Amino acid sequence: MKTVNVGIIGFGTVGRGVVKILLSKKKLLKQRSGLSINLVKIADKNLRQRKGMRVPGKLLTKNIDSILKDRNIDIVVELIGGIHPAKEIILKAITLGKHVVTANKALLAEDGEKIFMAASRFRTLLGFEASVGGGIPVINVLRNSFIANDIEVIYGILNGTSNFILSKMSDECCSFRQALADAKARGIAERNPKLDISGVDSCHKIAILVRLGFGLNIKLKDIHTEGIEELDPVDIQYAKNWGYAVKLLAIARKSGQKLDVRVHPTLISLKNILANVKFEDNAIFIKGDMAGGSLLYGKGAGSLPAASSVVSDIVEIAKGISDFKKAKDFFRSDFDTGIKRAREISELFTRYYLRFSAIDKPGVLAGISSILARNKISIATVTQKEKKAGQPVPIVMLTHQANEGKLNKALEEIDKLNFITKKTVKLRIMR
Amino acid sequence: MKTVNVGIIGFGTVGRGVVKILLSKKKLLKQRSGLSINLVKIADKNLRQRKGMRVPGKLLTKNIDSILKDRNIDIVVELIGGIHPAKEIILKAITLGKHVVTANKALLAEDGEKIFMAASRFRTLLGFEASVGGGIPVINVLRNSFIANDIEVIYGILNGTSNFILSKMSDECCSFRQALADAKARGIAERNPKLDISGVDSCHKIAILVRLGFGLNIKLKDIHTEGIEELDPVDIQYAKNWGYAVKLLAIARKSGQKLDVRVHPTLISLKNILANVKFEDNAIFIKGDMAGGSLLYGKGAGSLPAASSVVSDIVEIAKGISDFKKAKDFFRSDFDTGIKRAREISELFTRYYLRFSAIDKPGVLAGISSILARNKISIATVTQKEKKAGQPVPIVMLTHQANEGKLNKALEEIDKLNFITKKTVKLRIMR
Repeated sequence: MKTVNVGIIGFGTVGRGVVKILLSKKKLLKQRSGLSINLVKIADKNLRQRKGMRVPGKLLTKNIDSILKDRNIDIVVELIGGIHPAKEIILKAITLGKHVVTANKALLAEDGEKIFMAASRFRTLLGFEASVGGGIPVINVLRNSFIANDIEVIYGILNGTSNFILSKMSDECCSFRQALADAKARGIAERNPKLDISGVDSCHKIAILVRLGFGLNIKLKDIHTEGIEELDPVDIQYAKNWGYAVKLLAIARKSGQKLDVRVHPTLISLKNILANVKFEDNAIFIKGDMAGGSLLYGKGAGSLPAASSVVSDIVEIAKGISDFKKAKDFFRSDFDTGIKRAREISELFTRYYLRFSAIDKPGVLAGISSILARNKISIATVTQKEKKAGQPVPIVMLTHQANEGKLNKALEEIDKLNFITKKTVKLRIMR
Repeated sequence: MKTVNVGIIGFGTVGRGVVKILLSKKKLLKQRSGLSINLVKIADKNLRQRKGMRVPGKLLTKNIDSILKDRNIDIVVELIGGIHPAKEIILKAITLGKHVVTANKALLAEDGEKIFMAASRFRTLLGFEASVGGGIPVINVLRNSFIANDIEVIYGILNGTSNFILSKMSDECCSFRQALADAKARGIAERNPKLDISGVDSCHKIAILVRLGFGLNIKLKDIHTEGIEELDPVDIQYAKNWGYAVKLLAIARKSGQKLDVRVHPTLISLKNILANVKFEDNAIFIKGDMAGGSLLYGKGAGSLPAASSVVSDIVEIAKGISDFKKAKDFFRSDFDTGIKRAREISELFTRYYLRFSAIDKPGVLAGISSILARNKISIATVTQKEKKAGQPVPIVMLTHQANEGKLNKALEEIDKLNFITKKTVKLRIMR
């Protein structure tokens, strides 16, 4: 089995997540990819940051060069963020023939061309799934799934902090300042939230998506960017009355030979799924001329979602530099997730919708509910509709969590009652 | 540049889409992948099916073996569907060392293990993105993006025909029969819609996702499957009153060592995004223990969306069998989409939300609207709120499509009027 060696530079929020995944999911990754992904070194200036994690001491170093110059390391993961020294580190890694995975959206947006050109010249691979949309696989989908498409439009909610603030301003009709204070108190907004609320973070992300989707090496100054700091809750309420939500959208749309690209608070119809993307969630809509429109929705930030994306890049590169004939086929069903077999439907525990058809006479509800009670089915809500002349009366109820086997037994018994006119309708409720 | 040769078996709905893409997007695919994807043969028993397409006659053959036995063909695309002879064709192709791309969900669900084992034994690659969710890249996301995740739950709307029928029953309160008749009239339901409405098609698809997500080679008979044929619109209305939509969901959820897996009409909260997936659209929710929850939404069927997925498989395999050092890096911005530059924000045409703050006196609305009219800004709707004592009166309006440059000029002029007390608020509306 081929071994691929990984060095991580930056042991902060995302770095800790990546280390956690590489150490705890080693077996799963091996089973699914046929490769041994080996974490060999972690470099950070501040090594104290490993709260609650058991990382073998020999993995840790303060010396970044000990990763860059280690001939055994195949993939360098840059997770320190910011332009400097991340840029110099990545360029040096590429020059030394390393493949690079990064989550650094600011750097790729501002200086992507230089980095991509270097990777191309030195024939190394570059992964950056975590740079946009955290745990949402938008880079993979654009690079691979939509490869046969001319992209017509990409738009989305790319900043969780802003979306949290806007959701709160909309739901609670509070001011921007109040909503921001709450976001800070919950640890959603950073102490200095300028990049998020000014729209610059969304601008960085749409610049990366524009490069992938439209092949344009766009300059940040050419992206019209407005933030949400000036928004008055009264406008959110007026918009709501007219059937719109206000969201900070990043938009890139093909318009002949020009690209309409911008970031600003936008009124969006409440019928659009994006209007219903709440709190810190992100969502991205992509329309290709062949695939049609596709929406990706999920966690836009957080240590583990971003780390999950970083690790997917690591594995993709590891596969890319391996002979595919040696890698195991992930679609075979012999990897172990601890699941042995399908569960019987009679073992299901869920909530149910029930509709009984009965002759309207005294004792009907008592008869039904006593049988349910005996089978430990508890009723959450019930409605008995007025009957139309000559028709049986419908009794409709929602149950609490119940066992399907017991429920079926109860319904069998109920359907034999002389006042029941039709087989009872049973529908399951999604929890 | 490496050339990869492709032969297609089955020139029906999806086959025609694949041919169209391979012929019309050859340059785009070359620019993005660094590979020349070459369509060399199309086999079908009925060659008359090529309405409106210009396919060179030398590509067409009735002889399937002429594809299977052609040593120059690297990838065989099976698009005839059904179990036989698709199964025999795929197994023969694999035995002869061909990589295979298929959209055949019934075959993979029923006989997947045999096919996957054969591919593994003969060291060939298998692509099947189009087998689930049409143009939605759920297979790629599960296989690659979620590779570091133990999957906790997968559920979704996997059948467009059923979802169309349920949407119609819900919106128009019509019977199952009426909704089905309409779906047939629009060409959404097939003449024999049994597989779709009985839930069997969704059952096939969840079986494939279960294999990928949970590593379980599940038997179809172990998936509890109910269709929508028996649904009474009255239950959909009762459910709606309680805040639920009724959707045909396929659900697979880890429950200790057992997998809770089933297909049935389900009540789902109207607050859940899946409740708002309408008509033929599909949507799939996946929750991994690291990435968290992600939703994929889009076109679940159709010639071009499915073909887009098939071609993404072809390119992925083509890359897999090529030396990555020879393939071009797709993330470089030198592929040509015809886009030259970003558009100025002053060139934007869109609808606007405007809020004016004015002293309450006669002629205010006339003053504002005459300046807007002179700048060709047309008002769609306007509300003038009653003023609170001592406060300026807000005038709120939505415009029709207007040019941002002209609007800015108008607003500059308006904001200088002596009855305007504050800078006018301008927000853009998503079209």
